[in-house]
Amino acid sequence: MEKRLMELMKENKAYEIRSELLAMNIVDIAHILEEVDKHNLVRLFRILPKDMAAGVFSYFSPEVQQHIVEAITDNEIKTIIDELFLDDAVDFIEEMPANVVKKVIKNTDENLRKQINQFLNYPEDSSGTIMTIEYVDLKKEMSVKEAIDHIKKTGIDKETINNCYVIDPNRKLEGVISIRKLILSDESNFVEDIFTKDVISVKTIDDQEFAAQLFKKYDLMSMPVVDNENRLVGIITVDDIVDIIEKENTEDIQKMAAMEPSDEEYLKSGVFKLAKHRIIWLLVLMISATLTGNIIKKYDDVLQSIVILASFIPMLMDTGGNAGSQSSSLIIRGLALGEIRIKDALKVLWKELRVSIVVGSTLAFVNFLRIYYLEKVDFKIAITVCITTLLTVVLAKVVGGLLPIGAKALKMDPAIMASPLITTIVDTFALVIYFSIATLLLDLGA
Amino acid sequence: MEKRLMELMKENKAYEIRSELLAMNIVDIAHILEEVDKHNLVRLFRILPKDMAAGVFSYFSPEVQQHIVEAITDNEIKTIIDELFLDDAVDFIEEMPANVVKKVIKNTDENLRKQINQFLNYPEDSSGTIMTIEYVDLKKEMSVKEAIDHIKKTGIDKETINNCYVIDPNRKLEGVISIRKLILSDESNFVEDIFTKDVISVKTIDDQEFAAQLFKKYDLMSMPVVDNENRLVGIITVDDIVDIIEKENTEDIQKMAAMEPSDEEYLKSGVFKLAKHRIIWLLVLMISATLTGNIIKKYDDVLQSIVILASFIPMLMDTGGNAGSQSSSLIIRGLALGEIRIKDALKVLWKELRVSIVVGSTLAFVNFLRIYYLEKVDFKIAITVCITTLLTVVLAKVVGGLLPIGAKALKMDPAIMASPLITTIVDTFALVIYFSIATLLLDLGA
Repeated sequence: MEKRLMELMKENKAYEIRSELLAMNIVDIAHILEEVDKHNLVRLFRILPKDMAAGVFSYFSPEVQQHIVEAITDNEIKTIIDELFLDDAVDFIEEMPANVVKKVIKNTDENLRKQINQFLNYPEDSSGTIMTIEYVDLKKEMSVKEAIDHIKKTGIDKETINNCYVIDPNRKLEGVISIRKLILSDESNFVEDIFTKDVISVKTIDDQEFAAQLFKKYDLMSMPVVDNENRLVGIITVDDIVDIIEKENTEDIQKMAAMEPSDEEYLKSGVFKLAKHRIIWLLVLMISATLTGNIIKKYDDVLQSIVILASFIPMLMDTGGNAGSQSSSLIIRGLALGEIRIKDALKVLWKELRVSIVVGSTLAFVNFLRIYYLEKVDFKIAITVCITTLLTVVLAKVVGGLLPIGAKALKMDPAIMASPLITTIVDTFALVIYFSIATLLLDLGA
Repeated sequence: MEKRLMELMKENKAYEIRSELLAMNIVDIAHILEEVDKHNLVRLFRILPKDMAAGVFSYFSPEVQQHIVEAITDNEIKTIIDELFLDDAVDFIEEMPANVVKKVIKNTDENLRKQINQFLNYPEDSSGTIMTIEYVDLKKEMSVKEAIDHIKKTGIDKETINNCYVIDPNRKLEGVISIRKLILSDESNFVEDIFTKDVISVKTIDDQEFAAQLFKKYDLMSMPVVDNENRLVGIITVDDIVDIIEKENTEDIQKMAAMEPSDEEYLKSGVFKLAKHRIIWLLVLMISATLTGNIIKKYDDVLQSIVILASFIPMLMDTGGNAGSQSSSLIIRGLALGEIRIKDALKVLWKELRVSIVVGSTLAFVNFLRIYYLEKVDFKIAITVCITTLLTVVLAKVVGGLLPIGAKALKMDPAIMASPLITTIVDTFALVIYFSIATLLLDLGA
């Protein structure tokens, strides 16, 4: 497709290019234009009709957006900003350096500038930052015919008209009615008699994650956003929610792997930025691991007399870490999806206790067969390793199950209580258990 | 709310209960009914009007669905099945035991039964299993007025009328038109002149994940599903896609924590089922860790002469594991979101190499300060530990970055190349590096 366009460009066939582009999806156009060289990018972009241009523009990466804004005229900038949905315009402005923002703001009319500023003031990750103000509002006194006429007159510029929101004279949200219901109703009916009063909404300052949970719970396509006085100020559409869900999941996965979360794409992130997001946790965990070193040092006489004990340390530590990370991952995910709540802590404890005894005993048994019969290790040492395996797995699963809930109870993010931290904690205890049992069983008296 | 309903139940105020329920959202009704005792559950359920009853029913857990179907009459079953959207009916039937399925199928008319059977035959996790057949189709010869009249006549039972699909006389998909465009168009226009030919669709046998990716890429609200001859057979709506995205994320997180994926809720899963999903990977990893034990055994003379070397093993292993899991998590996530592709392997290698040198050097430097100056360990031993730290981090990050891409290239799931497996691999090499450097620097000649 790209090749085809380049050929048409060379032959200067603007009309053919235009009709080629017109038949395509804006997302695909954006992808293709991102790949062509900067000069042709601007040329092709200028060929697009203005409503399409704004759509394509909103799918560009910030780098390409910046390049275009720097290359086109003030008038062209104004047209794009006017055509963009407000939330896309705000997203774009947030990513631009100061000089570009200046150029853009200069070409924005007073009213729009005020709205953009208001958006930029909503707290980070709040529902206000992802809402759009292009929605249809209706009054309940309208007849169905009046409502549909109102939609026809004002609906062209709206992001979605699938749900229309009913407000009172003070703009307070009263309910919702779907375009479907309006169309399927008799024209002489009144909105008042057919609209749904039970409408799920969020406040501008509510967290995006909270909004996403409501979308999932109620299978919504769009949701109204209100201010503190319950006045309708915008709507959120489900396509933005899909992005939020993926962003939250990415952040959780990053935190679970002991990184500071970042929503920048991996391939586009610089080496030092990537290093910075990883190094702090690695340092913290490395220094915590000093504890395990100290335990081994404390028992160095035990190790010196029975060096073979050292050879089981990595296996015990890995098994403990893996067992703990299984439990913590399940609980962290359950908490994120709202399937597990803080009050379920005792249920989780009881379940993990039983699961860990089943799993731990099996592992200990297999270990015994392998160590005693295959490796022909001394019976008492084999028993020491097996008891430690069982106790480590139980400890790991209980700690792994409860720490994320504890974090949530303390208003911390459960995701940081994942594998790496659990491993460090469990390792320490596993070594203490190991050497204590060894001292006891092998008559090594400290 | 539940209390209020129970009081009304005691006083037998069916009318008040009904109007109370009528004002509520079906999701909330389902949640409340799930909490009441089984006898009142059926009583309350029977109070609901039939269309609402089907909606509430689709939000019940399989246990409650089964209880209700066993308690109500054949006629009532028939009404619910008829009112349910086909995809919800299929979801329900899939979860029921054989005797309940029999009872349900008996009360389903021939035509519907055929459709249900067809759904049950689509491959697991294919797009066919999540589509709905309640959509609006239009012909391009229709005028806008005819189209809207057609929607009014047939739209009542459709899951969504926001997008209508244009088909030819052989039911082949030709394009899409939004209800918005129809309403905003002049009534005398023809569908042919205003519908969009560039329509994104999936085949029934395409994977759900592929459908989800298209929804995300194109910000879709619904998407048509076609058979191998491009004939329209159903549509997928975005609310089902949200569920799929969360399910895929849960599965990835479970696989990344070395578990067999399961979509059952944690608190509802039995102890032995939970244990079963965890034990196989733990066994595999435990037995792989034998390798690390063998390495230590091979070097037991080194350890015996310098026992303090053992005290750094847990720190080195944890740091290697954590560094590797950071990289593998980022790459696995990037692959899942389509931000990283197989052909990016070299870019990832080059980036991880640089990041790991930055991170590894810093960690090695901090380690040196701590070990040499604070713990006053012998200089050569401190150097051994620090070089091992650097090399382990580099190795861990390169392996962690490349293994998931390798898995993808081999058509395996990248998510299994996460922390636990990486840790086991990196541990083994870390120990070899550690003891080799120790032998070399400390003149311990094997």
